Amino acid sequence: MELSLYWGREEGIVDISPTIFPKTMYQVLQRWDLWLPMIRTIDTLMRERMANWGAQAEPGEQAHQFLGPLLHSADTVHLGPPVQPSTFRDFYAFEEHVRNARARRGLDVVPEWYEFPVFYFSNPNTLLGPGEPVRRPPYTTMLDYELETACVLGKGGIDVSPEEAESMIAGYMILNDWSARDVQRAEMKVGLGPAKGKDFATSLGPWLVTPDELEPYRIGDRYDLEMTATVNGEVYSKGNLKDIYFTFPQMISRASQGVRLEPGELIGSGTVGSGCILELGPETHPWLQVGDTVMLTITGLGSLSNTVVE
Amino acid sequence: MELSLYWGREEGIVDISPTIFPKTMYQVLQRWDLWLPMIRTIDTLMRERMANWGAQAEPGEQAHQFLGPLLHSADTVHLGPPVQPSTFRDFYAFEEHVRNARARRGLDVVPEWYEFPVFYFSNPNTLLGPGEPVRRPPYTTMLDYELETACVLGKGGIDVSPEEAESMIAGYMILNDWSARDVQRAEMKVGLGPAKGKDFATSLGPWLVTPDELEPYRIGDRYDLEMTATVNGEVYSKGNLKDIYFTFPQMISRASQGVRLEPGELIGSGTVGSGCILELGPETHPWLQVGDTVMLTITGLGSLSNTVVE
Repeated sequence: MELSLYWGREEGIVDISPTIFPKTMYQVLQRWDLWLPMIRTIDTLMRERMANWGAQAEPGEQAHQFLGPLLHSADTVHLGPPVQPSTFRDFYAFEEHVRNARARRGLDVVPEWYEFPVFYFSNPNTLLGPGEPVRRPPYTTMLDYELETACVLGKGGIDVSPEEAESMIAGYMILNDWSARDVQRAEMKVGLGPAKGKDFATSLGPWLVTPDELEPYRIGDRYDLEMTATVNGEVYSKGNLKDIYFTFPQMISRASQGVRLEPGELIGSGTVGSGCILELGPETHPWLQVGDTVMLTITGLGSLSNTVVE
Repeated sequence: MELSLYWGREEGIVDISPTIFPKTMYQVLQRWDLWLPMIRTIDTLMRERMANWGAQAEPGEQAHQFLGPLLHSADTVHLGPPVQPSTFRDFYAFEEHVRNARARRGLDVVPEWYEFPVFYFSNPNTLLGPGEPVRRPPYTTMLDYELETACVLGKGGIDVSPEEAESMIAGYMILNDWSARDVQRAEMKVGLGPAKGKDFATSLGPWLVTPDELEPYRIGDRYDLEMTATVNGEVYSKGNLKDIYFTFPQMISRASQGVRLEPGELIGSGTVGSGCILELGPETHPWLQVGDTVMLTITGLGSLSNTVVE
């Protein structure tokens, strides 16, 4: 189910009837139960045509000539984030990250952290897709990345149990929560959490992967997915989603207490242990500079690469 | 410009041509420069007809019979929040509130608080209008109100100065940032700020007041607006918007650093000094119970009343 998820920011790949079919992934998610089977059908048809093409193509014929308007070349399609969510909740669910990040500020992990998953709301209006440049805010000299897994909801609910929450997940993506550590450090002293340190850019992608695609990696209620970050090709961070302390269903259940969640809302895991420069230490891993390329890779989810620009 | 701002959650009062005219206040704000003059024209026409009605009405004739579809009685119209914003940033801009609230947690005001205005993102999906019931989350025994002023943007911008920011404000409203203090206290120990303690309800209204209406109350770069909260008719809180440390233009300027703000985004001031039970002390002012009615009143902005339900 890869091709069917190349849904760009503004237009779908399926341009059959613009008046009936949804234009954005956000709209698709509003009726995920309705559209998902149709997406799977198109995906199957395209795979069959692709297989036929291999056998029947004339010399020099391109796949898109055979497949027609259903197939776009990756060279000619600009991918935005897989979805433009209505809200973005970012959690803090990896114990190692919490321990390391708080130690940098001279703090221990508080007992409350183990009792319930905690999140903050971040800015849903500054999402970037794979390959899109990240503008370095002029006010920071401590630009960092954060290696995270995210999911987006395809079903709403309020006061749901973790068991019910699992069925609300439409799919998973890689998420890079770009951070200005100097700004974040100063504002967090005031006690309202991070805001300007995190609100200027979040990259998401490269595509949405449905839960069925991740079944081969499942271990109990977790997924065994390697998470890696490189900067200019050099490995900086290595972790695994199975080490998460609270699962996505547990996080969604918490978020839904007293609040109706809606399809199209985005949930971030928080940073995997060692998944940012703040943890690694800028002594050995310098803060990001203009021109640096950060690539995040997660088993089954692909790679998400962005370059820092002025 | 009062009547023209009775824009409900789902439908406008101007039902002339549903295909051309905007349906929601959010849509109006996207082209505020375009629609505001038309709203003023309709407002003037309606005032003239109202004046004529007084002189010409037959005995027993009702205003709406004379004015036709342009006028709805307040009894028959259900008001939602004046706008359904895309995001909600809540600041922390009253020094007395910060001092009192932090003292309750054994903390001083940090020097950073005076250097720049700080906000957190809250939930834009749980806004309530005037008179709408507030569901008490079952998980809290420390339900509180917060007396705030809010503004909504009618123009976008990035990296704007406070001078430019002033022109981005479409209008002002009363805001009640309902809070579950027990949940908030526990989650804030983790360091990401408030989320579940604040995300279940925010009331907003009763209507949007354009800046020109507040000119009579202007003192320099501030407005002299009395802010009052009563619970079941008893005065709990009294403050004034002129005591705010950072002005709305300063807060908007800060929010716009490195981030494009869009029309329809909501900005809260934070709680005025003494503007919540947390500050007054539950010893003398008990936490809110089911059945309690909280009414917030601000000079020039009207009154916003909501009752707590199970």
